[in-house]
Amino acid sequence: MAIKKLYGTLDSLDTLRALASIFEHELDLEFIPINLDTGEHKTDYFLSLSPFGHVPVYQDDELTLFESRAAMRFISHCYAKPEKEQVYVVPKLQGIASSWIDIEDYHLSGPSAKLREELVEKPKKGRLTDKEVVAEEEAKLGKLLDVYEERLTNCKYLGGDKFTSADLTHLPHLHHLMRTPVKRLFEERPKVSAWCRTILARPAWTKVVDMVEKNKV
Amino acid sequence: MAIKKLYGTLDSLDTLRALASIFEHELDLEFIPINLDTGEHKTDYFLSLSPFGHVPVYQDDELTLFESRAAMRFISHCYAKPEKEQVYVVPKLQGIASSWIDIEDYHLSGPSAKLREELVEKPKKGRLTDKEVVAEEEAKLGKLLDVYEERLTNCKYLGGDKFTSADLTHLPHLHHLMRTPVKRLFEERPKVSAWCRTILARPAWTKVVDMVEKNKV
Ligand SMILES: N[C@@H](CCC(=O)N[C@@H](CS)C(=O)NCC(=O)O)C(=O)O
Ligand SMILES: N[C@@H](CCC(=O)N[C@@H](CS)C(=O)NCC(=O)O)C(=O)O
Repeated sequence: MAIKKLYGTLDSLDTLRALASIFEHELDLEFIPINLDTGEHKTDYFLSLSPFGHVPVYQDDELTLFESRAAMRFISHCYAKPEKEQVYVVPKLQGIASSWIDIEDYHLSGPSAKLREELVEKPKKGRLTDKEVVAEEEAKLGKLLDVYEERLTNCKYLGGDKFTSADLTHLPHLHHLMRTPVKRLFEERPKVSAWCRTILARPAWTKVVDMVEKNKV
Repeated sequence: MAIKKLYGTLDSLDTLRALASIFEHELDLEFIPINLDTGEHKTDYFLSLSPFGHVPVYQDDELTLFESRAAMRFISHCYAKPEKEQVYVVPKLQGIASSWIDIEDYHLSGPSAKLREELVEKPKKGRLTDKEVVAEEEAKLGKLLDVYEERLTNCKYLGGDKFTSADLTHLPHLHHLMRTPVKRLFEERPKVSAWCRTILARPAWTKVVDMVEKNKV
């Protein structure tokens, strides 16, 4: 099977989502770092791959996909394993997984980005955290996690009884939020907390984290 | 085949997206209007269907899906017709369609909502249009349509040579924007303009528009 290419940066949660999907499906990967600081994503070459100059971009033979969730959907569709995710075989399961992928996208990614900015990025740059923003976004996240707690009381995973892209799409957010005081909101909810522990421990995700850590040194 | 239920309101573009998909696949529909003005979407009953109290909600036997794009994906997967959209049969086509569905979502729905607010909703309520916001959003839309113009120079439809959900997801925005001065931005681009005319003329979309018009009288 041909090597898959992923263009991106390890600072981008969207890149990490695509990486998680690639490793989860045990595909051979060539990772091509794109330096956003030097504007590499706005060069003509990169714009020919990604019309808006965004990372990640996934390449599989002549197929080029932009948008991390589109890459994730393609990979789980194309490289589905009988013992694993079956969402593209059973339309009903695909529908349910899609609902939860969209929940991550509309309801989690906003608060996650704002909390990361306030609690991680600003302090790193010596700027003050805006406590009001944190309180507001924590309140949104808390309500969202109540919905997840109920869902995970009925099913082991968001998409049903198996791990699917609906869980995978959450990994980059969980990884970052669990390293901030916001962790508390996850730990207060037993089902959410167990789900986080389980999915963050998946070997494919550990491989992503290793890549991120190695990149830091 | 059992009747499908759709809970929503005809003022909601997200509801129209799900309706378009239902009619495109010639499914029997029971439409259940939800009155957002009286807060019907925040009743316990509705919250049991849609945990965030958002319309639309799609029901198919015991399957309940929230999020309009998830419903659209499920319908085109479950009720695919051999002569039409084949995206769930060929993973590559599904990947490409997914990239463009995400483009609509991330790049079009924001400007579309803001332009609709400024050019339609505010005047309706006797409020002044903010010309600066209009100029800003028009600029974003113009850049986006340049990308579409290039794509549609290479393919008849966004997902390839057949109409797919990647086109369908755009219909509610196009319908509304084409009734505002922003129409100009579409007409200036020949491929985009032809694409709009073609997809807005589909019988399934005409049926949605009829429902909206009848609801007004
Ligand atoms: N919805 C897109 C978002 C991609 C995106 O915004 N990527 C960021 C990095 S996380 C980027 O490329 N930023 C560069 C820019 O906006 O110019 C996805 O999921 O792939
Ligand atoms: N991403 C969702 C958005 C749903 C949504 O925001 N629906 C609006 C109407 S267009 C709604 O229910 N608003 C009521 C509220 O926010 O309380 C989808 O595509 O279904």
